[in-house]
Amino acid sequence: MGRTSDARERILGAAQTLIELHGYSALGVAEICKAAGVPKGSFYYFFSSKEELALAVIDEHWSGQRDSWNRILHSEDPPLQRLRKLFEATEAGQRAGQESCGTISGCLFGNLTLEMSNQTEAIRERLQQIFDAQVDMVDSVVGEARERGEAAVADTHEAARSVVAQLEGQVLFAKLYNNTRNLDGLWRNCLALLGAATPVRTV
Amino acid sequence: MGRTSDARERILGAAQTLIELHGYSALGVAEICKAAGVPKGSFYYFFSSKEELALAVIDEHWSGQRDSWNRILHSEDPPLQRLRKLFEATEAGQRAGQESCGTISGCLFGNLTLEMSNQTEAIRERLQQIFDAQVDMVDSVVGEARERGEAAVADTHEAARSVVAQLEGQVLFAKLYNNTRNLDGLWRNCLALLGAATPVRTV
Repeated sequence: MGRTSDARERILGAAQTLIELHGYSALGVAEICKAAGVPKGSFYYFFSSKEELALAVIDEHWSGQRDSWNRILHSEDPPLQRLRKLFEATEAGQRAGQESCGTISGCLFGNLTLEMSNQTEAIRERLQQIFDAQVDMVDSVVGEARERGEAAVADTHEAARSVVAQLEGQVLFAKLYNNTRNLDGLWRNCLALLGAATPVRTV
Repeated sequence: MGRTSDARERILGAAQTLIELHGYSALGVAEICKAAGVPKGSFYYFFSSKEELALAVIDEHWSGQRDSWNRILHSEDPPLQRLRKLFEATEAGQRAGQESCGTISGCLFGNLTLEMSNQTEAIRERLQQIFDAQVDMVDSVVGEARERGEAAVADTHEAARSVVAQLEGQVLFAKLYNNTRNLDGLWRNCLALLGAATPVRTV
């Protein structure tokens, strides 16, 4: 039956892949179950609706990405170098996705924001929490950089939101042109947005 | 029959509204025809497929937006002031949309990029042409600003793309939080990205 063992994980994995390829609206329960190799009954055993599944996919993806962001942004590197490594990790992730499926799928949270946030309040709320958390994490690093005299911004939270907005905008272009080179400018732009015109020493 | 007169325009208008509210994938021909008040036969008289309709909606929207961008970016104002007015017009447009339908729908081209660009080559190509044109228009203004010593960037095209990426990223946040205040930082961030730290005189 697939209700035990790894059926839930298989459904989540298949749903994430299909959302990345075709978006949320185009997703059908039958298609998910086929890709996951589970009978349709299994789906409704684990998820009451497509929306509940989408929230679980979002949570699962954020759980992994949050760990990665925390590892990078809480490292021993100087603060601005941690941001640089975050951009490098983003580029590497998009490149890996491109190599495995031929086309850059972009940021799952950005994709769902533009497709879904004005339609489903539960999804809007969850995505807000995630972007709030991302901005808070960057804010904390920007604050450290400012204390060291390496960033010159009046409002670190506002600056952090601008850095994440730049990231989302450039990932949008990377997806549109199917080219990770669109992410090359992230570090330089981050320095400009943070008033840190002189690049800090590469470690 | 609605095949003559304004049936095509009514279909395009209804389709644009529905795409802004629900995205492209969720769109059905029957729903479009009902909203447009035309019989289903009319749809296939004008459009051979949903994709052809989407391309026509994109072209129609870009035709109006391009006129607006040209008017603002070719005005007599100093170059950086023209960019400021472009951001103000973007904010006013998003606010008007919010007032008319209760929720910010974001940028039609950004929305379709994240929903569709990795699925349909014809749509990807058309959206690339539009963003190329937007970046070229901003590039030309950044070039003028640099000649006047009001912008300090090595590569005006790269800088222009970063300005448009920042715009798309902040519009994404405006949609997510349903709040046009997310666009307040666009001008300040544009100055930072262009190495024009000192705001120029407001005209």
